Parts: sequence; C-alpha cells; structure tokens
Amino acid sequence: MQRVYFDNAATALDADVLPAMMPYFTTHYGNASSIHSFGRESKMAIEKSRKTVATLLNVKPGELFFTSCGSESSNTAIQCAVRDLGCTHIITSAIEHHATLHTVQFLASQQKCKVSYVKLTHNGFVDMVDFERILTSSSEKCLVTLMYANNEIGNLSDIEYIGALCKKYGALFHTDAVQTVGHFPIDLQKINAHFLSASAHKFHGPKGSGLLYINQEIGIKPLLMGGGQERNMRAGTENVANIVGFGVAFEYACTHMEEHRIYIQSLKTEMHKLLSEKIDGTAFHGDVSDNSLYTVLNASFPVNDKTEMLSINLDIAGICVSGGSACSSGVEGGSHVIKAVYPHESRVPIRFSFSKHNTFEEIELAVQKIATLL
Amino acid sequence: MQRVYFDNAATALDADVLPAMMPYFTTHYGNASSIHSFGRESKMAIEKSRKTVATLLNVKPGELFFTSCGSESSNTAIQCAVRDLGCTHIITSAIEHHATLHTVQFLASQQKCKVSYVKLTHNGFVDMVDFERILTSSSEKCLVTLMYANNEIGNLSDIEYIGALCKKYGALFHTDAVQTVGHFPIDLQKINAHFLSASAHKFHGPKGSGLLYINQEIGIKPLLMGGGQERNMRAGTENVANIVGFGVAFEYACTHMEEHRIYIQSLKTEMHKLLSEKIDGTAFHGDVSDNSLYTVLNASFPVNDKTEMLSINLDIAGICVSGGSACSSGVEGGSHVIKAVYPHESRVPIRFSFSKHNTFEEIELAVQKIATLL
Repeated sequence: MQRVYFDNAATALDADVLPAMMPYFTTHYGNASSIHSFGRESKMAIEKSRKTVATLLNVKPGELFFTSCGSESSNTAIQCAVRDLGCTHIITSAIEHHATLHTVQFLASQQKCKVSYVKLTHNGFVDMVDFERILTSSSEKCLVTLMYANNEIGNLSDIEYIGALCKKYGALFHTDAVQTVGHFPIDLQKINAHFLSASAHKFHGPKGSGLLYINQEIGIKPLLMGGGQERNMRAGTENVANIVGFGVAFEYACTHMEEHRIYIQSLKTEMHKLLSEKIDGTAFHGDVSDNSLYTVLNASFPVNDKTEMLSINLDIAGICVSGGSACSSGVEGGSHVIKAVYPHESRVPIRFSFSKHNTFEEIELAVQKIATLL
Repeated sequence: MQRVYFDNAATALDADVLPAMMPYFTTHYGNASSIHSFGRESKMAIEKSRKTVATLLNVKPGELFFTSCGSESSNTAIQCAVRDLGCTHIITSAIEHHATLHTVQFLASQQKCKVSYVKLTHNGFVDMVDFERILTSSSEKCLVTLMYANNEIGNLSDIEYIGALCKKYGALFHTDAVQTVGHFPIDLQKINAHFLSASAHKFHGPKGSGLLYINQEIGIKPLLMGGGQERNMRAGTENVANIVGFGVAFEYACTHMEEHRIYIQSLKTEMHKLLSEKIDGTAFHGDVSDNSLYTVLNASFPVNDKTEMLSINLDIAGICVSGGSACSSGVEGGSHVIKAVYPHESRVPIRFSFSKHNTFEEIELAVQKIATLL
C-alpha cells in the first residue's frame, strides 16, 4: 500500500545529510575533546558546522551551542534564566510546546517564579495589548518565552515586535523557534532574543540534534554539568555526526528556502481548497493564510462517530497525520493548544504537516480518502 | 603514516551497529511518539532495544531511560535526587568524572546539599572504613555517588560492597558505570544501586547515546521536561537510530565479553611489561593488575623536557593517547584524578585505553616510539 506522510513535523533526512554524517560513524571516530589527530578531525567538523549555522543566523559562532534536542535547548534557557539570572516572573502563553509549558509550570510549582499567561486572540495569536500590559505592570525581572510559530495550528508570531517590547521593558526573551529555523529567514540581529531553540529534524536533519542560541551578553551556567564541551556550556561527549548533520541540513534548507516555501505553500493551499470544497463542515484552526507556517494546516471536523476515528482510519488507509503534536500524542484529553484557543469548541482536529517530498497527487489521495471515510 | 588509536575511551562503531541504525536514517523516519504506522515502526525499535538492554542488565524495561549521553544520565540522577527526593547530603569522591563532581559542587554552592568526600587509599580506591564512618555519622538523607570504575586510572570499585553499605545505612546510591557497562557483566539485582549511568560510545556504540537506570521504587521528575517521551522521564524527540545503536552494540559487547576481555587484557599486560622493561623510570597510576579495567593503563613518567611533550610528540608520531580524560582535556592544571590520588607527585601521566581493534604490533610500535622520544 502506498503510504502518504503528512506528519513532517518529523522529517526524513535530506539526500546530502547522511553522506556528510557517515565519516563520523566510520573512519572519524575520535572524541572531539581529545587533543590528538582523531580528536581534532572531529573538533574541526563541529566548529565548521557551528560557523555555517552562525553565518546563516547572523550571530557569532560563540553564541551557538549544540544540544541533543529542541526540548533540551528550551529547558536550558528557561531553567537557567530562573536559576542563574534572577528571573522571578515568566511571561508565556498557554499554547507553547510542552518543553516550555511543563518547565515553566514546574518552576512555578517549586515557587521559583510566578507565571503570567498572555491572552490569545480568537484565532491563537498573542494579544499584544495584553502582553504589553503584563510587561508594564511587572516589577520583577521577567523572562518572556513565546514561540516563533505554533507547532499545531501553524500561527507565526510577530517575533520582532515581541522582541522589541521585551527590550522596551527590560525583559529577557526566549523563543522556541523549532518550527521556523530552516523554514523562514532568521536574522538574529533583527530579533531582540536572548535565547532561541532549534531542532534539526524539523528541516531534514537528524533526530537528536538541537541548538541553543545564547546572546553573548547573557551568562548562564550549564544545565548539564561536567566536561568542558561546548565551551563549558553543555557537558557530554559531542555527537559529532549529528552536529555535522545539523549544519549540512540547515545550510541546504537556507539555500533552497524560497523554492521550498513556494512549493510547500502551494501544497498547503491546495489541501485547504480541496478540503473546503469537498468535505462538508470542514473548518480550520489558527490563521490559515497570512501569518502561518506553510508547512502546517490544522483542519477541524464536526464530532461524530466517523470523525472521532478519522486519524486512526486514515492511518489504516496509509495516510499519516497527527491529532496534535507527536510530543503530546497519547496524552489524555486532547490538544492543549486547541483547548486554549478554542475553549468552547468541540470538534476533531487533524494536523497535516507538509514537506518538499509531498506531491499534489498525495494531497488529492488524502482528500479522497477523507471523503470516503466521512 | 600508520595511526595507532590508544584512546578507546571513545570507540569506533562495531560492524553490526551502523547497519542496524541505517533504516532510521533512511526509510523509517517516523517520530516514535507519533501514533501512525511510521511512528509505530520507530517506537517498536526503541522498545526492542530497551528490552534487550533490560534483559542483559537484569532489570525491568520500565527502569531504563535512554538519554543523550552519560553526563545527562548522571546529571539527572544527582540533580533530581537532591531536588525531588530530599537528599541533603552527598557522599562522593574527588576522582569522580566531572559530570558527577561539577554537578555535586554546583548543588553545594547553591546550598542545596552538603558534600563529603571519601578518603582514598594510596592507589585510588575508596577507603571503605572512611566511607562507612561518613555514612554512620550522617543524620541527613544521603545520596552516594561513586563510580564503578575510574576512567583515568582504571580502578574498579567493589560496587556490591558499596551498594550493601548504602542499603545498611539507608542511603540512595548512584553509580557512574560508564566505563564498565559493556565491559563487565552487570547484574543489577546484585548491586543495590538506585541509579546507574551508561554510555554507548564506550562499547562501540554511537556517540550521543546514553542510558539511565532508575530503580522502580524511586520516583523523580524529569530534568528535561516537556513531551511524554521515555514514559514522561525524558522529554525530546527520541533519537531512534542512537537508541537502536545502543541496544545492538550492548548486546554484541555482552555476547562476546569474555573473548574481548581476554584479548584486551593481554594487550594491556603486554604494554605494562614492555613499558616497565624498556622505558627507564616508568611507573603506573592506580591498581594495574587486580581490580582494574582491562581497557585502561595509566603510565607515569618522571618530569623533564621530553616527557612533558610526550603526548603531543606521540600524536605527531601517529600514536593517539590521552593525558587524562577527553572530558577534561584542555582544562588548566592537569588531571584532577591524579592530583587527588597522588597529591605530592610530580610526574607526567599518559593514559592508554585499548579496544579489541588494537594489536600487539601496535603495542610494540608505541613503546618503540616512546623509547625513541624519551
């Protein structure tokens, strides 16, 4: 059976990525922290990757730290801002990724900080008036942690404006940019972010390969302590292959960004059109058109016996989609994002996430299957 | 130039490991937390790996958590024991890996706990009388964190006795077993350990692939919070390839353990013999014979112009060795292990670490080069 993969929140490796990683699985097995020739080979590969990524994000290589995943990056930024930088007030939103939300909620439960949740607009954007009101009224040192784009509904924040407000009110700013890094041009000199989290498997790099940007003016201690790896910011023998994979995948994604954007956007537009035309009662979560990830479309269907089983029946029919994010699949009670934005709604969300590997034929096939199933 | 790799504290991948990992870089790219067919393929591979490792360590699969490295495992055990389990007194030694030492020292600097360092014997073993004295005299909830084997001098602890003392005095016990897992038979039903850290690249598995055993009676919260991965104990999209690599490498290491032990021990014995015979003034750190890793030999040479440059000149001659551990290379002031065990010594340490891929010819070549250089 032909399988259609519409869950590109986890992507397949790009063609050039694995070959670039291979030497570090075979001949170049030195520990990057060893000073002998095997070690230096590994070290050079890591620093080359760091420099590539730094150039493309317009930061200094010394501001980038490779981690094991986006969640580790966000945990490091948030936990260490509270522990080391005296942040006692976290401003966030109810639709952040759990790596942010659960960390913030745990810190609050330990009385390390208080938490304010910004109001959201009717379709899931940060209410900037409310956000500024919270910033104005806070007398404590604030950490703002707001995502660049939402992984379930696709909404794209006005990150420069959020950064500017943080600057105006002296707040530190962390952004979970896991959905946008590799998909949108990011110039960190234009965003007043102190921390930014990214993850390679979102742009056809390997799983288990994350990145944390820390502005050079920020001095935190590591979350994972130990050896002097990553300039004393992240202990643990370097995963050389994955760091190389991050750099190669990111460079390729940036170089071909516009071409991929145009193609993937056209897939999303087609899916939106076909679902609207052919499936009665289809609606969509988030802002589908203007300020939205071109990779994500979150459809919603009225609740009934057929829609409740839709994602499972689509899977049986070979169409892989998600009810929410993989990170919260299997969690009781459905998506925290949909609940927060649409508290009075009772509908069935289906997230389609697209990549350059998808085709128009797959879009048609999926809509056909949905039509048959419903 | 022929290169000789005597720094097998970071090993090359075993022949079967990379082929087993490959599908998860190519066709099986699903996120293991997704519930569709691509996700389930990945999930099944992870759970198979967990089951394999659990059987070989004689624990329940539910007691094993895959991490990104041994350092993350140790950080999780130690930080969370203090944060979540009320441990206010840590008992450790001055020769632990920095993932332990730096974590403990940081927690102490934050007044989260007090720290006692056990006395060491003349050649670097835990002084069991002193250890029991500390346990007896403590009125606080203790976490003992002592390594199974030392990564620089190779000393192998009597881990069962340490575990038994912890049990007798009601202390929690974490052991950094990074050097022994995959090299010595470990039956966790015979060791009273509550936490154990391991890392795949020590036994020909991939870098960036760690393991934390947590006894089922222990309830901690995650250090890295977020998604529900690893049964809510370790957030972050699973690095499926590396988890598969851990299982395959570990199974191979366990299946061929005795054969590897005999061969590698004979390499170490030969190196010890040749250095003693041919290089005037050679001595050795730690217990070279009885209670020692067969993979590690730590030689020491009198200080002079030639020995001070020895590791660098050996590197130029193609022989890769280490002055200490890779995790502390480049750190000012030399090895903390050698300083702690031999505080009055002023000699040059060279660590040779062997694997099954080394040969007797390489041993002879290395000793010859050392003789020439000195």
